[in-house]
Parts: sequence; structure tokens; C-alpha cells
Amino acid sequence: MRMAAIAGIGETKMGRYPDRSLRDMILEAGGRAIADSGMDKKEIEAVYMGNFNSQRLCGQGHLGPLVSEVLGLGNIPTIRTEGACASGSLAFRMGLLAVMSGIYDTVLVGGAEKMTHQPTELVTEAIVSAMDYEIEAMEGFTFPANFAMMANRYFYEYRNVKREMAMNAVNAHYNAARNPDAQMPKEVTLEKVLFADLIASPLSLFDCSLVTDGAAFLVLTTSDKARALGKHRLVEVAGSGHAGDTVTLYTKKCITSFEAAKSAAKQAYDQAGLKPADIDLAEVHDCFTITQIINLEDLGFAEPGHGADLVAEGATALHGSRPINTSGGLKAKGHPIGATGISQMYEIVTQLRGDAGARQVKKADIGLTHNLGGTAATGLVHIFRGQ
Amino acid sequence: MRMAAIAGIGETKMGRYPDRSLRDMILEAGGRAIADSGMDKKEIEAVYMGNFNSQRLCGQGHLGPLVSEVLGLGNIPTIRTEGACASGSLAFRMGLLAVMSGIYDTVLVGGAEKMTHQPTELVTEAIVSAMDYEIEAMEGFTFPANFAMMANRYFYEYRNVKREMAMNAVNAHYNAARNPDAQMPKEVTLEKVLFADLIASPLSLFDCSLVTDGAAFLVLTTSDKARALGKHRLVEVAGSGHAGDTVTLYTKKCITSFEAAKSAAKQAYDQAGLKPADIDLAEVHDCFTITQIINLEDLGFAEPGHGADLVAEGATALHGSRPINTSGGLKAKGHPIGATGISQMYEIVTQLRGDAGARQVKKADIGLTHNLGGTAATGLVHIFRGQ
Repeated sequence: MRMAAIAGIGETKMGRYPDRSLRDMILEAGGRAIADSGMDKKEIEAVYMGNFNSQRLCGQGHLGPLVSEVLGLGNIPTIRTEGACASGSLAFRMGLLAVMSGIYDTVLVGGAEKMTHQPTELVTEAIVSAMDYEIEAMEGFTFPANFAMMANRYFYEYRNVKREMAMNAVNAHYNAARNPDAQMPKEVTLEKVLFADLIASPLSLFDCSLVTDGAAFLVLTTSDKARALGKHRLVEVAGSGHAGDTVTLYTKKCITSFEAAKSAAKQAYDQAGLKPADIDLAEVHDCFTITQIINLEDLGFAEPGHGADLVAEGATALHGSRPINTSGGLKAKGHPIGATGISQMYEIVTQLRGDAGARQVKKADIGLTHNLGGTAATGLVHIFRGQ
Repeated sequence: MRMAAIAGIGETKMGRYPDRSLRDMILEAGGRAIADSGMDKKEIEAVYMGNFNSQRLCGQGHLGPLVSEVLGLGNIPTIRTEGACASGSLAFRMGLLAVMSGIYDTVLVGGAEKMTHQPTELVTEAIVSAMDYEIEAMEGFTFPANFAMMANRYFYEYRNVKREMAMNAVNAHYNAARNPDAQMPKEVTLEKVLFADLIASPLSLFDCSLVTDGAAFLVLTTSDKARALGKHRLVEVAGSGHAGDTVTLYTKKCITSFEAAKSAAKQAYDQAGLKPADIDLAEVHDCFTITQIINLEDLGFAEPGHGADLVAEGATALHGSRPINTSGGLKAKGHPIGATGISQMYEIVTQLRGDAGARQVKKADIGLTHNLGGTAATGLVHIFRGQ
């Protein structure tokens, strides 16, 4: 297997775009990624496109050829991948394996989602299609309720980490305020977070990620080709992991730690020949603030039950020892579901290139992304290394 | 790259199942494929699942982990692929590339769709999400209208082939009457087809494929592992091709021949080291009877404008020189969209193994499947060889 690298990145600003179509956001973000790479678009041999719900919410499926048509890529093969909130990282992994195994040299990998134009009831209904419908969603189970149960169980097994969950939100908004692509670039205080309206106890408003429209794309090629471009610092894909878990919550052995994330992380670390301690910064799947604490443990940054300690001591803040979600995360940069995994990689590449401006971290040589789907039934971890 | 082979196959009978869930059909078809392989399900390392519209029509997305949960496959990685009516073949190709490149040894590849429980208006709306929504579907363009335009243009460029289109329907129903898994296992006469109600001129009722519920699965593994099982005749994947085209109809250079199909066929023939004349039988994407005539030309079985000649002379009938759609095809076996590509392969493997009973063809050593998505914006061709 040969090494692959990110040659170009592009994304839209995340936000609410009732007047923009999927096509329009794909054109902007995809065009930017190709331009950023400096490559001729004729070199792109395939498209891998992550999307969760465009059929339900926009009437548009079959996004693969829509992407190739909009960007003028010709008769190349395309595919849409879906794994709920991990749809973007699935597209990335499929493209990565194709490049590493020599099937294609250069591919375009992306994700897009448009949700905010629909009524909240329909968006909620569309989102719960990421969990089991027949047994759980039909009973009225929603994602805030799902992760609230996980938080309550976490409090029972370990300790109450409501304060550290609030600190995650404060950090996310602090970072988002320094990210021009963030949907909510506004700082919040710990008091504001702690006294916000309850959504599903113990989760309140600021414990929940955003509903977001947006698109993000990457040009992925062989390390040799990317090195020859010489336009940016070379950012190689050092490790990739992908694992699963049951889709129903009731069959999971444990809901305070996610098997799919732990297994994907182990695969990625092993492939990269790295340990958790080697990771300089990470973008993790903070769909809710409790998830971020569980993520820190699943990725090996903290022992089980001690993720919140890292938050409390400031390690995860922008200038802490291991900054987490410097982009603002799903919580404050936004959660454009099918694009989220790609948008996480956009941030890591931006940091590794030293292009993150007001939110640039000092040491950014090795970065990690962690993307979950649904009730953590899909998990992907990727490790990137700046050369 | 190493060779891959089909170790096991399973499918539901195609039909209308208002009282069965996706889960139930996945359990039946997936369970059958694993049992047919004779392998321990612990050997399955990943799931590739094709589906087009389960979120819109069933409220259920994230089908990958649903499959692994239902079949008890553990924490393995899963993915759902979507490329409209070619979603199943996309799943197959992703699984195939993973096995051939050594990422996994054994994978489960499948597809499922459940549509008939919804009102026709909603099903139509869901299906048009396979074409461009913003420019074409929003104007009221539907798939029968789409392929009717293609047929009219074909009549203009070459000749009127309405009679041969009807013969395709007669052949399909003849074959379906010999297939226990077919949705419409009933023979029809040429007169009945020719004088049926018009849907979109020149297409009448029997020119259109079916709306179908169903699921189909394959166990795909290395040729070495499949050979060692020794349970069935070894059926290897000799060639795979995947190409695309624009999603809008108005931007296509030609609508009487499909670039995606021609390019995918060329890739598959080249990889297999075979020519069209080497193919004993094929399952082609007869979403409409005109499509089958175009397919015969795109696959190289006939010169442009002469696909209908093959039909007229009986070459494509069950005991003709090159039988086409011995299963009954999308037209009479059924078109369970996300499962269709896998169901085509189910038929080819069944024929190559000599297990096709009343519809068994005499010479079945090399078979081909051809699957299109939407307005032929996605095209996949696979070639299978019995050893």
C-alpha cells in the first residue's frame, strides 16, 4: 500500500442558507478544494461523496454525479456514502483505500448537507433515521434523549461532569469565535451555558450541537503527487480506522464508551505506528458535550472515567497541552451532517499547514479526526501527519 | 491485486410486502447468503450495503449497522452506498476492491429496498430524487417521461423498435414464470403488451419495470478461500467497471447511448481480458424495454442502432444464442432499487452454478451484469466466470 496525502481543501462557511441549494454549496466548496490543490481537474479520477439526508430534506439523491456535473469533472465514477453523521468520513475512507491500493491516483472526497430550510419536526424525523426506526425511533426516542441517557449513566458510573461538559461548550465557542467558517462565532460564559434551558436532562441548550447547512471537500492523492505540487506543507494520511456497533441502543453492552470508536482508534494508531500521546490536536465528534468527554477516553487521551479531568485542567482548550476541536467543533463551528467528517479534516489540515490564523496552535504536526454515526454504530478515526 | 469470488448468495422472493420490514427482509436474504456460503459468520469482516431510499420511504437510514446487528456480525465496519438504481452494484464494487486489494478477506455485500407500502405519489417523488431535482424533477419530469424521450429520439435516429421493445417484455415475463423469486411470474402475449395502456408515449404499461420490495446478499471472498470451501462451482469476479455521466438529461451529449455504461463495460472487458462475444448470458438494466435495446448496443452485443435486431431474431430469449435477463429482469423479476444490482448477480451466479432449474441456460460459463443509476448517470458492469 502506498501513502496518500491531502492536496487541496475547501469548504463553505457553515450556517443557515435557506436560499442556497446543495448544488451551489457543492460548487463553492468543491471548486475551492480543487483550486487550493493547484491540480488540473482532469486529474481527478473519481468522486466519493458523503451525505446523510438530502433525499428526505431536499428531494435530491444520487449526489455523486451531481458533484461531477457541477464541477465539470467529466464521465468519472462517483459514489455517495451514508453512515449517518459519519457519512463524510466514510467517503474519505473509501477514497483513501482506492488511492492507497492504486485503483486511482487522485480523487475528490466531499460531503454536503442542507437542513435548515425545513421545519424542525421534519429535521428531527430525518435525523432519527440514523438510529433504529422500528424499535427505538418509533417510540419517540430522539438523539438528545439518547445522549442524555448516556450522560446520566456516565454520572452514575463515574461522577457528575456537568461542569466540564459546560466547559467543552465554552471552549468550542471560544474557538469558533476565531474561525471565519464557524456558524456560531460568539463566545459564551460558563454561567450562560450552565443556566441555559434544558433540552433532555442533563443536556441543556449549549450541550447540543447545531443544525447546519454546509459543504466541505478534499483533493486526495498519492504522497508522491502531493509532494511534487509543492504548494502547501505536505499533509499525509498516517492512519485510518473504521468499525461498527449495533444500531439499537438497547443491545449495546456499554453506553459510556463506544466500541466502534475504540476499535477505529486502535486501527488508526496501529497503522500510523503512533500512540495517543503523540497526537498534537484532534477534532472529535462532539454532537453533545458529554460525547466529547467519552471521546477523550475512547481515543486513549484519558483513562475511563477521567476524560473530564483533562477538560477541567485546561488541556483541551485552544492553548492547552492537547487542543480539542480548535475549529469550534460540531457544537459551534456546526454539524452539516454529511460534511462533518470532511470539515473536521479541513480543520486539521489547516492547522498542520499553519494556516489557522487566530486559532493556530503552536505545535501542529500530528492531528486526528474522530467521527461517529448515529448511536455510535459507525466510528471512524483518521490520523494526519505534516511532513 | 488478487482474485475474488462469490462464496454465497441469498435473496428474498421479490414482491409487495406491506407487512414485512426492511429488517425482516435483510435477515432472510442475508442469512441465506451466509448459510449458502457454508462459512462461519465470524469470517465476515465488513458490510457493504446498497440502498436508495429507505430514509424517505421507511424512516430508516444508517442501514450498515442495521445489517450487522440483525445478522449478528459483531463490531465490524459497515457502509451504505447510494447511486440511485445502481446502489447495489456500488456496494458490490466497493466490497470487491477491498477484497482484491487485501484490505479484507471476506465481506458481505447486499442491497434492500421497501417501497410498495407508500402511496404512488410519494414513491414517484422518492424515485425522481435519482435525477436532478432543481432543474429537471421540479419541472415535473419523471422517469417514464425521461426514458420515453430516449425512446422517441432512438426511433428518430434509427428506427421504430416498439415491436422489439414489446418482445423484451414478453421474454422477461416468460423467464420470470420460471423463476420462483420473481414478482410477476406470469407469461404475457405480444398483443397484450402492444395494446396495453400508455404511460408516457411510446412507453406503455408493459414497457415499465416494477415497483418492488426485496433484498439480496452475496458473500464475497478471495478466490483461494472460495475454492477451499468446495461447496459450489467456483464463480470468480473476472472484471469490474464503474463510470459516470451528468445527472441532468439536458447536458448529455447523446441520449440513445450511455457513456457511463460504455465506459464501465470497456473497463470490465479489459480487466477480464474478454470481448462481448465471450459473454454467454447477461442481466442488463431493463428499467424500461427501450433501455434493454440501448444496453445491448452499449455492451457491444450489437452495433449502434441494431440492438433490436438481436431481439427480433430471438438471440436474447431464454434459449437464444445469448440469453438476456433469464431472471425476468427489472421488468418481471422486479426492481427493488437498492437490491437490484445484487439480485442481478444472484441470477448470474445461480446460472453459472447450474442451479437455475426451469430457466437454466445450456452454456453458462461467463456471465455479465449491467446496472444503471438514474438518467444513466452511474453505470457499473461486472463479469463473472465459472471455473
